[in-house]
Amino acid sequence: MIRIGIVGYGNLAKGAECAILQNPDMKLVAVFTRRDPSKLQIKTDNVAVCAIADLENWRDKIDVMLLCGGSATDLPEMTPAITKMFNVVDSFDNHGQIPQHFAVVDGAATETGHVALISAGWDPGMFSLNRLYATAVLPEGENYTFWGKGVSQGHSDAVRRIPGVVDCRQYTIPVEAALERVRNGECPEFTTREKHTRYCYVVVEETANKAEIEHAIKIMPNYFDAYDTTVEFITAEEMARDHAGLPHGGSVIRSGRTGWNLESCQTIEYRLQLDSNPQFTGSILVAYARAVHRMYLRGDCGCKTVFDIAPADIINLTKDELLANYL
Amino acid sequence: MIRIGIVGYGNLAKGAECAILQNPDMKLVAVFTRRDPSKLQIKTDNVAVCAIADLENWRDKIDVMLLCGGSATDLPEMTPAITKMFNVVDSFDNHGQIPQHFAVVDGAATETGHVALISAGWDPGMFSLNRLYATAVLPEGENYTFWGKGVSQGHSDAVRRIPGVVDCRQYTIPVEAALERVRNGECPEFTTREKHTRYCYVVVEETANKAEIEHAIKIMPNYFDAYDTTVEFITAEEMARDHAGLPHGGSVIRSGRTGWNLESCQTIEYRLQLDSNPQFTGSILVAYARAVHRMYLRGDCGCKTVFDIAPADIINLTKDELLANYL
Repeated sequence: MIRIGIVGYGNLAKGAECAILQNPDMKLVAVFTRRDPSKLQIKTDNVAVCAIADLENWRDKIDVMLLCGGSATDLPEMTPAITKMFNVVDSFDNHGQIPQHFAVVDGAATETGHVALISAGWDPGMFSLNRLYATAVLPEGENYTFWGKGVSQGHSDAVRRIPGVVDCRQYTIPVEAALERVRNGECPEFTTREKHTRYCYVVVEETANKAEIEHAIKIMPNYFDAYDTTVEFITAEEMARDHAGLPHGGSVIRSGRTGWNLESCQTIEYRLQLDSNPQFTGSILVAYARAVHRMYLRGDCGCKTVFDIAPADIINLTKDELLANYL
Repeated sequence: MIRIGIVGYGNLAKGAECAILQNPDMKLVAVFTRRDPSKLQIKTDNVAVCAIADLENWRDKIDVMLLCGGSATDLPEMTPAITKMFNVVDSFDNHGQIPQHFAVVDGAATETGHVALISAGWDPGMFSLNRLYATAVLPEGENYTFWGKGVSQGHSDAVRRIPGVVDCRQYTIPVEAALERVRNGECPEFTTREKHTRYCYVVVEETANKAEIEHAIKIMPNYFDAYDTTVEFITAEEMARDHAGLPHGGSVIRSGRTGWNLESCQTIEYRLQLDSNPQFTGSILVAYARAVHRMYLRGDCGCKTVFDIAPADIINLTKDELLANYL
């Protein structure tokens, strides 16, 4: 049994907690929190809930630690620090900062002989894998990534910070016509506006000026100004009833060309439709925890990404089972 | 430069030959044929054309050999024999015989210190990878593989063997309604007939009895009897004009469930739309030749499949480039 620990207890951690139960070669042994552990009730029975300060005492009792903090401020500190004590998997998703995060974590992992896998999830993660595989197979071509339809937490939060707004759920929606052009092998160049639209369901205070709020959303720099955005005001009851989930998804498409005169159009698409983004991301962390454990047992160490992991290492099947049933 | 050799010179070999030109870290140095080499004209300039009996003399001049023979009779003999002299990649696609082929090739590779990658291509190959990744991430669920729309060479050949038939192109077509049910997360069980239909374009001799030929096709055991098959008679000119290409494609879909009560439906689809099946398959062999070469240089040996290859090994990019641009 691979003994798993989880740091943090937000949506992603709960998704991972649930995923561990679907993998009979693993068990969850402890959850670590910055809150008062005595006040945190987790879903799985017979699992310790501990303070982060307690991590040190679990060194010999946990094989892989899943780090479920945020990428903005938690993981840049947390991943290198905890890597000095444990093998870890994180879901660091700040694409621009990945090389720097890798370097720091690699130092900590190499120094202490641990394996640390960073940026697991679906983007970065499964989408990255598909960009790599497709580009390797079709060197001449273009990659396209579409996101949605799904809830963007960052955009929902940005709207919630507008005065008068009580709650918001922001859906990112790919433009179907753009998707079709790519699938048809056109290799178009798109503006931001041409690829995705944004749709906001917003609950406001009774006295709020809806027209002003709608305007404030639509002109918000970085978040909304480059998109066609629709704002729909709903009640708190409608929000609770219709928008409780965190669905997401999207497509990575490579449109490539082969042949003596590049006469053949070859299209590869990897598409996700997810009812629950955190449960899916949590499931990926759990599968990669298996690979981290196996690599550590083989004497490997250092920082890794999904690019470095042989696919066979993430699945709970023997080589013979894979040859007979999956190839 | 990775020095590549090709054994065979059919459609797949020509696809690989063309793909090598799209990969600046490789060059084709020789093609080996069972025909009279003096009568074989290949497309690339300044490449040796040699008899298979000559292979032995190229031991130090070729890094990886691409074996482009057929799976029925060529590769079971050819792959282990040539593995004793070279690192190799084959596209052995007889799914049921893969464990046996693996064992024989592994013996030859281990004994002589070579790396042999078997069953590269898209099914087995990229489709297999996607079955594995999706199953590892979503342990509870069902995998579905749909093929087409595309030309099945085996089925086209089977029709050509019917007396009176001059030529045939058989298209395998997925049933759109079945695809939609799977994409919607229904997890249905299908009969063979419910998943695919078959469409045959047939050229016959002038005196042929079309009704008899159509009947002979539709009742042909294993090939057509379990499918809804349409037969359309066309002229040799129409065949040459409209059906010269070898398009193919298909989808691997995993429909999985996560959540405390399996309440979340999560769907992963990997889809190919290929204008040229042999050019795409050839491109995959070439990308995996890079990984074989790198593994050999690292001192690895033995039989491998796509499951054993870290994705970073198949692409002509550095670790830093991958971290900065692909993750």
